[in-house]
Amino acid sequence: MTFDVYDTTLRDGAQQEGMNLTVADKLAIAPLLDELGVGFIEGGWPGAIPKDTEFFRRAREELTLKNAVLAAFGATRRPGVAASADPQVRALLDSQAPVVTLVAKSDVRHVERALRTTREENLAMIRDTVDLLVTEGRRVVVDAEHFYDGYRFDAAYATACAEAAFGAGAEVVVLCDTNGGMLPDRVTDVVGALRATLGEGPRLGMHAHNDTGCAVANTLAAVAAGASHVQGTVNGYGERTGNADLVAVVANLELKAGRELLADGGLREATRIAHAIAEITNIAPFQRQPYVGASAFAHKGGLHASAIKVDPDLYQHVDPLTVGNDMRMLVSDMAGRASVELKGRELGFDLSGQADLLARVTARVKEAEAAGYTYDAADASFELLLREELTGRRPAYLTVESWRTIVETAPGTAGARDAVALAEATVKVRAGGERIVATGEGNGPVNALDQALRLALTRIYPEIGRFELADFKARILDSEHGTDSITRVLVVTTDGERTWSTVGVGPNVIEAAWEAMLDAHVWGLLHTGVEPR
Amino acid sequence: MTFDVYDTTLRDGAQQEGMNLTVADKLAIAPLLDELGVGFIEGGWPGAIPKDTEFFRRAREELTLKNAVLAAFGATRRPGVAASADPQVRALLDSQAPVVTLVAKSDVRHVERALRTTREENLAMIRDTVDLLVTEGRRVVVDAEHFYDGYRFDAAYATACAEAAFGAGAEVVVLCDTNGGMLPDRVTDVVGALRATLGEGPRLGMHAHNDTGCAVANTLAAVAAGASHVQGTVNGYGERTGNADLVAVVANLELKAGRELLADGGLREATRIAHAIAEITNIAPFQRQPYVGASAFAHKGGLHASAIKVDPDLYQHVDPLTVGNDMRMLVSDMAGRASVELKGRELGFDLSGQADLLARVTARVKEAEAAGYTYDAADASFELLLREELTGRRPAYLTVESWRTIVETAPGTAGARDAVALAEATVKVRAGGERIVATGEGNGPVNALDQALRLALTRIYPEIGRFELADFKARILDSEHGTDSITRVLVVTTDGERTWSTVGVGPNVIEAAWEAMLDAHVWGLLHTGVEPR
Repeated sequence: MTFDVYDTTLRDGAQQEGMNLTVADKLAIAPLLDELGVGFIEGGWPGAIPKDTEFFRRAREELTLKNAVLAAFGATRRPGVAASADPQVRALLDSQAPVVTLVAKSDVRHVERALRTTREENLAMIRDTVDLLVTEGRRVVVDAEHFYDGYRFDAAYATACAEAAFGAGAEVVVLCDTNGGMLPDRVTDVVGALRATLGEGPRLGMHAHNDTGCAVANTLAAVAAGASHVQGTVNGYGERTGNADLVAVVANLELKAGRELLADGGLREATRIAHAIAEITNIAPFQRQPYVGASAFAHKGGLHASAIKVDPDLYQHVDPLTVGNDMRMLVSDMAGRASVELKGRELGFDLSGQADLLARVTARVKEAEAAGYTYDAADASFELLLREELTGRRPAYLTVESWRTIVETAPGTAGARDAVALAEATVKVRAGGERIVATGEGNGPVNALDQALRLALTRIYPEIGRFELADFKARILDSEHGTDSITRVLVVTTDGERTWSTVGVGPNVIEAAWEAMLDAHVWGLLHTGVEPR
Repeated sequence: MTFDVYDTTLRDGAQQEGMNLTVADKLAIAPLLDELGVGFIEGGWPGAIPKDTEFFRRAREELTLKNAVLAAFGATRRPGVAASADPQVRALLDSQAPVVTLVAKSDVRHVERALRTTREENLAMIRDTVDLLVTEGRRVVVDAEHFYDGYRFDAAYATACAEAAFGAGAEVVVLCDTNGGMLPDRVTDVVGALRATLGEGPRLGMHAHNDTGCAVANTLAAVAAGASHVQGTVNGYGERTGNADLVAVVANLELKAGRELLADGGLREATRIAHAIAEITNIAPFQRQPYVGASAFAHKGGLHASAIKVDPDLYQHVDPLTVGNDMRMLVSDMAGRASVELKGRELGFDLSGQADLLARVTARVKEAEAAGYTYDAADASFELLLREELTGRRPAYLTVESWRTIVETAPGTAGARDAVALAEATVKVRAGGERIVATGEGNGPVNALDQALRLALTRIYPEIGRFELADFKARILDSEHGTDSITRVLVVTTDGERTWSTVGVGPNVIEAAWEAMLDAHVWGLLHTGVEPR
């Protein structure tokens, strides 16, 4: 049986607040969607949005898709105008996309109050536009906008809209929950009732938004009631609360219902592809995202960790590899020796049978966490701690004699709205048999310290030149004491290939950052294969 | 009919990767949950986690809840030990929580392979522990762990576990989808079948995780099949993909099914409360979160914009005010002015009809927010901005000439694990007709600046002696630039009666904190009725 996986990341997903895709972005995302194995890639609205017109033009020249076909999105003709005379409809033909997806009104209130035309004219608009496009050799999908709300208000009219589309040759009518307010049982009712009216022949689809938190479930409900076309976006991008997360929809159908929907088993690449698309959209991935999120298969509770060792399948609903993700053990104050052992294994250390060592490491982790450290998001610091317990010492790349940082207002600017402060730092360290004094400037004390430390070390360890601070997060703990509190800093460092995370804790952000930056340099040098000099 | 809304933000929510709640955090979150109107607040696992033991002790002294009761989470007794002799069970009684929620195994594979005991002993563990707690006067909830997976593998055994709990006096058995792998139709099947076996009397609950993206829908499915107790967390916090988002579950049931579940119509405060909790957890809110997300009622599509003005109900599934959220038009400033006007009214300024002023304030807020400020959690700073536009100037309590802060390692301690840095700050200000130079010391640069500023001002404005910094939070924005990024600081100040919040933004934490602290002093003096001297 035909079943369509239809991606609208580039069109409806791009409506998300804060998203602004260039043509180049779209041309970079499309091949990733094709690799995922979807059947349709909706590229945009040529004619209405100039950069979408440009996308279809360049896609014809630059894109070679192996699984998907491109769909151009547009609207039915305007009231009172022949379809062939409507420039918006002509632009859809001009895009040369083999599939055209037409949004059509199916809620009579929208016809009368938003479109301001008659029920009859709207039906004619659907018929005429589909007919023209089919005559011109296009495959036509009709997105029936506000279908559920419309059906619940006036079922006969909504049904007439679907029938008009099918009558003119649309290959599928997609029932859109445009405002996203549906719940699964309502979807079941509407799709079931419509199916009963139309019979088994005409193909129905589902387009869901997540305003009730049920976009995925609503899509599954429509499929269970007979829909054979699902629309959604990667990472659930979209206006308001977003569209149905296409990867979650497909993973549920493939892994839980045994269907095969994506070409070439693309689901196994889903995590990599979803993250790559997030890099292009420049929207930070949601760590709790089902299936592909960084936390989706991360385990923290000590309750579970001991048992996970025995039998991972007792504690995960699917094998993470089926979606290209990975199980991770988080080391935290809720964890015990079992999770330390698993974490060690993940980092390449076999600690099984080393009960004393495990006890020591676990005790140090608990002590450190009581003092404010957290290793959940600081694998590199945890590894250094583990190595220290294994070998009795840390790699001695440098010793620190002292450091100092000063922040002061620039003369004459204090108190002004645009006041600027200057930060300067001096570090005194020993490395490579020398005593080195270096001074750095920055836009803040931590930045200045970072500059000074790099300057001091680069001559002895030029490898540090490739390390770059990629992220920096500060959290004030025990905040009831105001500025007297403890600060935890997480630092993410990259050398362009690897990325590693370290943690520091101190009575203020500067001391905490210093500790995290030192750990970052030590881990980086260690994994670059550099010996202490 | 009894229906429980049971919050587990402080226990299961705290399992989220990167979340590390202090006792003070938990004591700050609990009253917000109470204000939301939930019936139960699960506070943690006393006995197993030392800071949870501390939470229950301090909660008895410090918390006054008007709607909710506290629940202590724990496990059934260990195999082979009397419940009364199990220290973990004793700790639950010692917490003095009126409700105890026991996690019990109900999947026979977990009993045999993880717990490593017999089917019979697990049933006895459930019976004995519930019996002891009920005898000691506690209300007992049983969380039947892995219930769905267990039931699908061995329905008779899972049912026997539930029956053991009811037989010993549990008031509700909560069916947990611990691994989060369920889909709504499976939930419907299991709850329906169990209901048929148990009859209508025994009360069932639902505890869902979001691994399939269906936590909310699964919870609704359980309710439709007869469950009368729903568990979840605010903002959907939790291990892996998180727990069911309690606000979305309740909003769907209240707004779509006409039930009244939260005390005092608390749903109307949901957005503010969810955001306030996000400030405390210091986990960035998810902008697409259903109902309470910043984008949940934000409209971007040009297709909709004109029609929304005509009839907003055509384009939103519920009125945003029902969840305390607001419609935003991303292409127009109409909504901006409306919320500035509402906010002004909330602070005691009637701005209706003052179109020019509203336009100026809205423009300043937009400009400031583009630069990184946020006034959501900084009413006092917003009020100062508003007063400045109303009167043309800020209250001139002081002028700042300059400030400087130095942090340096104490001699001989640098590089040691327990290294201590010393922080010192000097401020030069004019107030009361004098030029004042004051120096303060602290455990960090911000603390030292705070001390120096107080010292400088206290002689002229002794009222400042009563102001105390109650909370201090830093968030690094635009974090892809590492230590080069922008920092936002939120400061909460109290004088023992009132509490007020201010915001500062700068290239580093010190400048940002300085701005927020200045605002805090100005607002405090203004509201203490002090004239500039």
